[in-house]
Amino acid sequence: MPPSEFTLIYRYFSALGRGAAVDLSVGDDCAILRLAPGERLAASVDTVVEGVHFPADSFPEDIGYRAVAVAASDLAAVGARPLGMTLALTLPEADEFWLHSFSQGVAAAVSEYELPLVGGDTTRGPLAVTVQVLGALPADRALLRDGAQSGDAVYVSGTLGDAAAALAFLNGTWQPPAAAGEYLLQRFHRPRARIALGRELLERGATAAIDISDGLLADAGHIARASGVKICIEPDRLPLSPALRTGVTQAGVSREQVLRWALAGGDDYELCFCLPPTQPAPADCTCIGRVEDGSGLDWGNDAGIDIDAGYQHF
Amino acid sequence: MPPSEFTLIYRYFSALGRGAAVDLSVGDDCAILRLAPGERLAASVDTVVEGVHFPADSFPEDIGYRAVAVAASDLAAVGARPLGMTLALTLPEADEFWLHSFSQGVAAAVSEYELPLVGGDTTRGPLAVTVQVLGALPADRALLRDGAQSGDAVYVSGTLGDAAAALAFLNGTWQPPAAAGEYLLQRFHRPRARIALGRELLERGATAAIDISDGLLADAGHIARASGVKICIEPDRLPLSPALRTGVTQAGVSREQVLRWALAGGDDYELCFCLPPTQPAPADCTCIGRVEDGSGLDWGNDAGIDIDAGYQHF
Repeated sequence: MPPSEFTLIYRYFSALGRGAAVDLSVGDDCAILRLAPGERLAASVDTVVEGVHFPADSFPEDIGYRAVAVAASDLAAVGARPLGMTLALTLPEADEFWLHSFSQGVAAAVSEYELPLVGGDTTRGPLAVTVQVLGALPADRALLRDGAQSGDAVYVSGTLGDAAAALAFLNGTWQPPAAAGEYLLQRFHRPRARIALGRELLERGATAAIDISDGLLADAGHIARASGVKICIEPDRLPLSPALRTGVTQAGVSREQVLRWALAGGDDYELCFCLPPTQPAPADCTCIGRVEDGSGLDWGNDAGIDIDAGYQHF
Repeated sequence: MPPSEFTLIYRYFSALGRGAAVDLSVGDDCAILRLAPGERLAASVDTVVEGVHFPADSFPEDIGYRAVAVAASDLAAVGARPLGMTLALTLPEADEFWLHSFSQGVAAAVSEYELPLVGGDTTRGPLAVTVQVLGALPADRALLRDGAQSGDAVYVSGTLGDAAAALAFLNGTWQPPAAAGEYLLQRFHRPRARIALGRELLERGATAAIDISDGLLADAGHIARASGVKICIEPDRLPLSPALRTGVTQAGVSREQVLRWALAGGDDYELCFCLPPTQPAPADCTCIGRVEDGSGLDWGNDAGIDIDAGYQHF
């Protein structure tokens, strides 16, 4: 008889449930967590499905890491301090090798984001991973989408377009040089939730923020709409990784294609945010434009780049 | 072009996000909730998958209600006050009729349990519903599994075995009289999370509690193990619904089969709990046995009833 659900869960996940805010972890009907006096709770949920959000042949370790990072990215986007998470895992079979490898990826993310795994559910079915993240916010503020002001500078963290380029590589539509390809795949499979940056932005009075999951244009568009402003983006200022720039110089990818990845490609999980113009740029962040009166986005779309803006799940 | 994910979600779910503890609901990167001063957070997650946890031809309205009730039952089991929930919905296609009906069931549960829907994610894939519930507990107590004391009385709420009998009816292995069958199906498709009872038990100093999802024997066994005690159950005292008793008298089901459903059938989502012997029985609850020194369960298993104890997902 294969090991029972309970045995497997305890074996692989019970060590991941400890944390400063955790009074009770996996093993009773609910987990119990403590917030500091006056803090509020931030909560978000994300599901990743095999063949939809990651290729069917992804390493289980990458699937585990990425599922947590993608969800934790929403805590980063509001500036929350991670408290803990629950994980609902749907699996076609209780494959011990798979679970072991998957749990290694989850463990790496738990450790990196200080996000203990306090509850879970395992069910049989087609592979899907749902992570709900729980975080703490001060009583009086949060990084939301609706506070951008005319005159603010618009920033993004890190570099853009890497994950979209990695997907094109995985799909066989382009062939980057080997080292660049490895870097891009790593960016797709191991996105970083920008937790520390989010908390810094909350302290520094950023007026609006969002994590770039659906593509810069789609996500900056959410800020513009929620804030009732126009966001102007200068495509020449978009931060590109050396691996992506290599694509233009060595692998025959057009500059237009690279811009398309950077503007409309999702899955980078960098932060896009607005700061009053008096604030200096945070480390590893690039000013890509400004907020103006008006509505919608202006990204030089008269330059003739054809963009299919924004990921649609349906 | 079909309506986008965002349009559908907003249309069907955005009205369900209001609540006394909700500062920010669906529409930003995280929801933001307030706990009262000194309260702790209770969190739990449950996934239901079509064909595993409910029949493939279930009404979408029942699927929605049941997914929330099953998750909310874990809040009841620890005595928590509901704060809100997130819902991760994986759907094969964005079927408007289905979503409308499903949302009606979710709305009924949101209203009944005062559990606003504050966040969600919709993905394409085989039908699965993951609900994470969030609740509030006092700083100094919770209904856990590990406090049962020798001498305590053991109770269950409501009646047992109804959901298991309903599944046997759905599988065609027995045919109850029509009215009884309808009642039993309702018990399976519309289980009630015992939120008010859980909060009453927390006030009254219940020493241990669990919700009966996997069957009385499996779940009472969790209490016995966590508390380091023996739990003695008298099968003759198990509360049976009139519909189930009708099975014995009119539909040719053996008393042994009915006991098997009541002892080992899951999905009833009643509470099993332990009270000091000086406490009177709460309304709609039945004393079914007592806690003794020792370990394990004693349910008269020398009476020759063959029980396959406890649901295993794998």
